[in-house]
Amino acid sequence: MMVKSDRAERELVNELEDKGYAVVRTPASGGRKKSPLPDLVAGKRERKLAVECKSSSDEKVYIEEEEIEKLIEFSVRFGATPLIGARFSYTPWFFLFPHELSVTDGGNFVVEKSEGGLDLSDVE
Amino acid sequence: MMVKSDRAERELVNELEDKGYAVVRTPASGGRKKSPLPDLVAGKRERKLAVECKSSSDEKVYIEEEEIEKLIEFSVRFGATPLIGARFSYTPWFFLFPHELSVTDGGNFVVEKSEGGLDLSDVE
Repeated sequence: MMVKSDRAERELVNELEDKGYAVVRTPASGGRKKSPLPDLVAGKRERKLAVECKSSSDEKVYIEEEEIEKLIEFSVRFGATPLIGARFSYTPWFFLFPHELSVTDGGNFVVEKSEGGLDLSDVE
Repeated sequence: MMVKSDRAERELVNELEDKGYAVVRTPASGGRKKSPLPDLVAGKRERKLAVECKSSSDEKVYIEEEEIEKLIEFSVRFGATPLIGARFSYTPWFFLFPHELSVTDGGNFVVEKSEGGLDLSDVE
C-alpha cells in the first residue's frame, strides 16, 4: 500500500481533532521545500504542537537539516512543541522530538519505520 | 484607494511578524464562507491570537454571525484570543474582541471605520 502524503496528513488532522485539538494545515509549499511553516499547527487549550509530517511507503524517510531548523525556529517563536510525525505503510502515525532524530553521514536526518516513536497519546 | 483583501492581510502578517509573532495564514476558503478556521493564527510564546480579517474600501464591513461563532469556537478549542481585525482605506489595521462588535437588526455584526478599535500593540 502506498501511503499518499496528502491522505496521510488528513488522517492525522482527523486524529488530532478527535483528541480535541483545533488544527491548522498550512498551505502546501508547492515544491518549495524551504517553507518556514510546519505542515500542521495544532492547539488544545494550553498545548500547542507544530508538526512536520513525513509519510513513506519505504522503510525510512529522510529530512533535510534545514527543515528541522525551520521547525524549531517556528516552534520557539510561536510557542509550540516541535514534532516530527511519521507515517509508514501498515503502521499508525508515530512521533519524534527533533533531538531524537537519527543523523545521516551527510548531516541530514532520518526516521526509520523499524525504530518507531511516540504515540499521539504520549505527546499530547 | 481600494483595500485589496489579500494585500491587506499580508500587510497584517508582516506587522505581526515584526512584533515577534510566528504567523500561519490559513488556506483561502475559496468562497466557502463557512471555513471553521480563522484567517490568521499567530503565536508569540504564551500569546496566541486567532484573527478574522476584514478589509473594505467602504465605511463599514459586515460579518455574519456564523463566522463569529466559528472564530470563537476555534479559539476556545485551540487556546487563542479571538480577534476581528479591520482594515479600511487610509487607516491602519485595528482590532475588536467579538463582544465589542455592533449587532445589526438582522443579527449579524458590523465594524464601522469611524468607531475604530484597538491597536495591535494593545492586543498583543
